[in-house]
Amino acid sequence: MAEHEHKVNIPAREAGSYKIVIGTEILPSLWGRIEADFGRYNKFVVTDENLVRAGHLEKLAGGREVAAFVISPSGETSKNINTVVSIIETMEKAYLGRDTLVVALGGGTVGDIAGFAASVFKRGVPVVHVPTTTVAQADSAVGGKTGVDSSISKNAFGAFWHPAAVYIDPAVLATLDERQYRAGLVESVKHAMIADSDYFDFLEQNIEVILGRRTSVLERMAQFNCKIKGGVVERDPNERNLRRILNYGHTIGHAVEAISGYNILHGEAVAIGIIAAGLIEIEIGLSEAGRLDRIRRILEKIGVPVKLPTDFDEINLIDLIKRDKKAVNKWPKFVLISRIGQVYCRDGQWAVDVERPVVEKVLYKLQRILT
Amino acid sequence: MAEHEHKVNIPAREAGSYKIVIGTEILPSLWGRIEADFGRYNKFVVTDENLVRAGHLEKLAGGREVAAFVISPSGETSKNINTVVSIIETMEKAYLGRDTLVVALGGGTVGDIAGFAASVFKRGVPVVHVPTTTVAQADSAVGGKTGVDSSISKNAFGAFWHPAAVYIDPAVLATLDERQYRAGLVESVKHAMIADSDYFDFLEQNIEVILGRRTSVLERMAQFNCKIKGGVVERDPNERNLRRILNYGHTIGHAVEAISGYNILHGEAVAIGIIAAGLIEIEIGLSEAGRLDRIRRILEKIGVPVKLPTDFDEINLIDLIKRDKKAVNKWPKFVLISRIGQVYCRDGQWAVDVERPVVEKVLYKLQRILT
Repeated sequence: MAEHEHKVNIPAREAGSYKIVIGTEILPSLWGRIEADFGRYNKFVVTDENLVRAGHLEKLAGGREVAAFVISPSGETSKNINTVVSIIETMEKAYLGRDTLVVALGGGTVGDIAGFAASVFKRGVPVVHVPTTTVAQADSAVGGKTGVDSSISKNAFGAFWHPAAVYIDPAVLATLDERQYRAGLVESVKHAMIADSDYFDFLEQNIEVILGRRTSVLERMAQFNCKIKGGVVERDPNERNLRRILNYGHTIGHAVEAISGYNILHGEAVAIGIIAAGLIEIEIGLSEAGRLDRIRRILEKIGVPVKLPTDFDEINLIDLIKRDKKAVNKWPKFVLISRIGQVYCRDGQWAVDVERPVVEKVLYKLQRILT
Repeated sequence: MAEHEHKVNIPAREAGSYKIVIGTEILPSLWGRIEADFGRYNKFVVTDENLVRAGHLEKLAGGREVAAFVISPSGETSKNINTVVSIIETMEKAYLGRDTLVVALGGGTVGDIAGFAASVFKRGVPVVHVPTTTVAQADSAVGGKTGVDSSISKNAFGAFWHPAAVYIDPAVLATLDERQYRAGLVESVKHAMIADSDYFDFLEQNIEVILGRRTSVLERMAQFNCKIKGGVVERDPNERNLRRILNYGHTIGHAVEAISGYNILHGEAVAIGIIAAGLIEIEIGLSEAGRLDRIRRILEKIGVPVKLPTDFDEINLIDLIKRDKKAVNKWPKFVLISRIGQVYCRDGQWAVDVERPVVEKVLYKLQRILT
């Protein structure tokens, strides 16, 4: 008999939207707001030990009994598939179904884990984010990227799963560990570098009060960050092209983070990756005079590393760079800037080819503070 | 300071489509076709021991060296998150990136596992299905449902992940185990019952040659099945409402399958679930005279069970029914038919309320062959 061909048409998915609410001290009244916004859902909170210890879960619950999973220990070591399995099984034991809303209360790690769990639980339930760290408020809570690590690389498991809402309360940053607080500011620097030179000026001028955690300034930052990140995500929600600009400093940053066994925090690794990108820009003639100095200066004020630890093995780093999620034929493309506030675009592409010898040279310099 | 609200707009996703190719003996030339259709991707095959043993992987590869993961042991026991982790880590060790096409060669279990692995690998890579069983060719390869089981329930982890193409070769069914072959035919009966009374007549008239695995008739069946399933999926890809009709017989079927420890095959459990649905239809006055007898007759000819094993505990069954993925407030809705070829629709809903006492009564009857 002859061959038959049948076509299945997948209809367009309608446009949607979600809101980001920014307000100091909104946490204590947040549960009521979530109930009002998502009344028909059963709520299930995913958080971690640190948040419980800091009293944030109690503040969110406001005396109510809420179903929750507390990730333990806090931090990157729990960002793996086993934690996701535990969350899913806890939800199942509570007889939760598709009418469940996951409430992610925590930093980037909690958001990544909870968002991924929501994306796969019974083929997907909605999630709202209540980010509690500088990195999560500036970056990871917005945009729908979720994921957990395999034993081999970061976010080997993941999904694009846009939140149903994001609630940002800068007051919760008061309890954040100093090193975490500072590292998370790097994503704000990155946003300024790729999209808004006025924001970069703002950060330079206000760095002292930012480090002092004054909520009025943190609110302003949250607005800048949400506008930049939200604007990019809107134009390219599934990272076909433009969204890659958000990976500025991340290609080498991710490798540095991994090779350190996550002893270097994400934001710290991205700081090193930003300097690496700056060195690449110099190598290939994209840099203005003094630009890298200016960038290094604000990162030093923040107090994050700007060079590669001397004991890092370059060959291992190169190997990890080859495993980059966005690698094609085992070598990633790189996001670079042409000036502060403007990503370099070549032939319509926002991530461009950089040959391996250039990267090797930059890694060599990066370990020795050569420019 | 005042509260700020920012809105992130997620643009509509464009419509898409995929093709289903149906042809006897297309497997030996399939790799060339996949290369032609998906040239820019690295290919990674996911299959299982049975398929290797039956020579199908060799036939697909055609002497080429292809990267592959062979699920072992074959069958439901491997349909869990650990298998997915092994697949992902194997892909990572091979330095595969987002430019990977997963080729799922196998039955429903392989398709579910491979499809889910593809959906989460580095936030999603495309998958093509080469279904090799009656259940996969009739049903699971089309429609984009993927998933693996938790220790508590079926498909607790999953995603909607539409394939990039489906290639159906009825000739591969020649090697399928007789019990598997017969059980898989139940999904075709289900399709006929929910959508096409002519197809039901066709199945009744041709059941002997179908059981004899004549490829010309199997091709016709594949066309009926793809038209019905594809048609439903097109109209409701993410199971908001209409698509639920495909769950006819599955609400109780899934519970039966689980309670048997998967000693009862999926199709066999669905056969019991179809009889249960028929009994519910009688209870609530939806049945025509003799309809359930006609349905029972074709299922008996296929050789699948039409009653509940006497050692099944009804309380455990009810507990599993409460955990149904689509349960709202811990009780699922049921898909029922008003006549063969037509699903019962109440108030625009294709899955309707059936009170628990009715279901309990039906389970009691189902164990004792009472109508």
